[in-house]
Amino acid sequence: MKIVYATRRERFNAAHKLWNPEWDEQKNLDIFGKCSNPNWHGHNYDLYVTVKGAPASDTGYCVDLKDLSDLIKKLVVDVFDHKNINLDVPVMKGVMASTENIVIAIWEILETPINQMGCTLHKLTLYETENNFVEYFGGH
Amino acid sequence: MKIVYATRRERFNAAHKLWNPEWDEQKNLDIFGKCSNPNWHGHNYDLYVTVKGAPASDTGYCVDLKDLSDLIKKLVVDVFDHKNINLDVPVMKGVMASTENIVIAIWEILETPINQMGCTLHKLTLYETENNFVEYFGGH
Amino acid sequence: MKIVYATRRERFNAAHKLWNPEWDEQKNLDIFGKCSNPNWHGHNYDLYVTVKGAPASDTGYCVDLKDLSDLIKKLVVDVFDHKNINLDVPVMKGVMASTENIVIAIWEILETPINQMGCTLHKLTLYETENNFVEYFGGH
Amino acid sequence: MKIVYATRRERFNAAHKLWNPEWDEQKNLDIFGKCSNPNWHGHNYDLYVTVKGAPASDTGYCVDLKDLSDLIKKLVVDVFDHKNINLDVPVMKGVMASTENIVIAIWEILETPINQMGCTLHKLTLYETENNFVEYFGGH
Amino acid sequence: MKIVYATRRERFNAAHKLWNPEWDEQKNLDIFGKCSNPNWHGHNYDLYVTVKGAPASDTGYCVDLKDLSDLIKKLVVDVFDHKNINLDVPVMKGVMASTENIVIAIWEILETPINQMGCTLHKLTLYETENNFVEYFGGH
Amino acid sequence: MKIVYATRRERFNAAHKLWNPEWDEQKNLDIFGKCSNPNWHGHNYDLYVTVKGAPASDTGYCVDLKDLSDLIKKLVVDVFDHKNINLDVPVMKGVMASTENIVIAIWEILETPINQMGCTLHKLTLYETENNFVEYFGGH
Repeated sequence: MKIVYATRRERFNAAHKLWNPEWDEQKNLDIFGKCSNPNWHGHNYDLYVTVKGAPASDTGYCVDLKDLSDLIKKLVVDVFDHKNINLDVPVMKGVMASTENIVIAIWEILETPINQMGCTLHKLTLYETENNFVEYFGGH
Repeated sequence: MKIVYATRRERFNAAHKLWNPEWDEQKNLDIFGKCSNPNWHGHNYDLYVTVKGAPASDTGYCVDLKDLSDLIKKLVVDVFDHKNINLDVPVMKGVMASTENIVIAIWEILETPINQMGCTLHKLTLYETENNFVEYFGGH
Repeated sequence: MKIVYATRRERFNAAHKLWNPEWDEQKNLDIFGKCSNPNWHGHNYDLYVTVKGAPASDTGYCVDLKDLSDLIKKLVVDVFDHKNINLDVPVMKGVMASTENIVIAIWEILETPINQMGCTLHKLTLYETENNFVEYFGGH
Repeated sequence: MKIVYATRRERFNAAHKLWNPEWDEQKNLDIFGKCSNPNWHGHNYDLYVTVKGAPASDTGYCVDLKDLSDLIKKLVVDVFDHKNINLDVPVMKGVMASTENIVIAIWEILETPINQMGCTLHKLTLYETENNFVEYFGGH
Repeated sequence: MKIVYATRRERFNAAHKLWNPEWDEQKNLDIFGKCSNPNWHGHNYDLYVTVKGAPASDTGYCVDLKDLSDLIKKLVVDVFDHKNINLDVPVMKGVMASTENIVIAIWEILETPINQMGCTLHKLTLYETENNFVEYFGGH
Repeated sequence: MKIVYATRRERFNAAHKLWNPEWDEQKNLDIFGKCSNPNWHGHNYDLYVTVKGAPASDTGYCVDLKDLSDLIKKLVVDVFDHKNINLDVPVMKGVMASTENIVIAIWEILETPINQMGCTLHKLTLYETENNFVEYFGGH
């Protein structure tokens, strides 16, 4: 069995702010700086989904990346794209909308459906800007 | 006189929505699609500012791009970055927050101060995503 | 009237070869080098379509880039993507499949439909690789 | 011993199709979609070769990346570049020309010669498009 | 505890040469080629600093990437940027100025201060060009 | 005659400093900041060479970009790559080593040989960093 790691990139554009409701506006500003702007700001997010598995002998695919793309679009892009992450995304309710927490939430969404495709979700990488990104391997 | 065109890139991250207040929610949705999401969405904007002029004999510079960067940061990035373009940016009040109109507004901001630096503002390019961008030469 | 230039990027992946049927295999190899490989090679092409026009007062759009994207996908991407440019693309029959000629052929396809959208086709840029690209303004 | 991981990128442009000869045209189309186009399509492939080892005290190099580049060009780029992967590449005969299988074949080619350079082949990454890529660590 | 890996990119532009003072000019040229040019050459270096840790419940941050950026700028960028790595950078004195050795030196600089921020330095990646880069995990 | 604009990218890595010998060290520091570091710094330069012309009927080429690449490598890359622009590059002697002046010097080198290839040199673009670049059309 020759294990390979296949990655698909998808993108979404969303608004958010970093705001802890247990803190007043000044403390939010002290901790989060301009990321706490009450009227929101936003980003173009780049999401890389990496799965691992052995290529099938009849297709040469670890997974059909078109199927993986369709799954990510249905379960993640349609939920986050052109949305307000704090207000519009159910799985982010009550959670700080940091890149770290977004990528953990996406893992929860994708892990079971991807593992039912015959491969294993291995890593998520989420770029918030060209300078900042977070990787997640399921928490370990 | 050997005219060159020098360009500086700056970046800002902002929220916006495309929403015509003279239309109801359904018509906004029909025209703008997901860009009309009432709770906003956002982007990483890349702004390229191109000036033209002849290199000075003592510096070799058309313009000191560090000075140009400082000017753009003070007049544009500080105004748009981590802001809601519809709500927080004075020059965008009452204007549709399309990339086209944002780039025109930035031209109005930058034209006079740049031309006082001894060169001429030639072009602005504003990327909303890796797939969509708008260029502006002052309207002609 | 403030004229802006709006650009949409689309992509297609295609096979081709550079082969002049009036020359024998040796001369094709002499002129085109490895680009003349009889069994074809291929590229990821990046196409940038630039239109010019004034932003509409009710939308802020020069053109709806989603509509422009749909048009390019229907008229260009569906014709060239995952195709053999020499064998499968009707408008390229009898034409050398160089980047120059591909971009001219795409202009012929897009010029009239884009100009019927209320803006003007201004420029096409076609990247064959990260190092080679061709721009076309309609021939002048 | 301070182990570092050094990577060299090389590129090649090739034609291929995904086609299982045990299936008829309709089943190939059902499974592989437009990737099964009988007349081929193609890509610009980006290959990243990562080796591990300790920097030598006299050169500071884990491996001379110029030597590594020359080796990859001779053994991989000259074999795949401007070729039809299904028809022209001996090591891909009888193998589905998926990115997964291409990267495994390149590992077989490079592993021994690289390990004879005094470092160890650690990872290959092969980009088929900006959205799809496969990594391989030798199968484990 | 859900461990994530957060990365911050910073950049610096520097001159260097590869030159072993125990060898004569000819041997340096034989081994290092044009990298041994006595009058130096230079690069735009891209540095990616990856830390691991669990997101805090009150901020959602593994580490505040703004704080991490400030630390890297103070300890690394201010030391290497617009400098001659061989002549101006104290930690590189007596060390071959290869990308491998630069990344090891940066690890020595950053490891303790980053680990005092409540997360763990996990990986450094240093790009010398778009084609050459080195990763370092602390030597193991 | 259908005129197209074809572009070839080449790269070189070089050291330089901005230093006006008629000024003392303090004034050089005041004007050029860290770019005046006496021991040099350096960059990865990206050069885009754009020529205009009509595609030939027998090749489909405006110019063979392989020939253009060879010419640029011989006349520009071999002169600037892994060199000190102030000390090692004859055409830059006595000239401030700004991006503006480098691109003008490259135009002087390339204009006649390119125009002898049957096309016309139209534009040079020289990137010093991802944020700074200069374009030149021959001075007008």
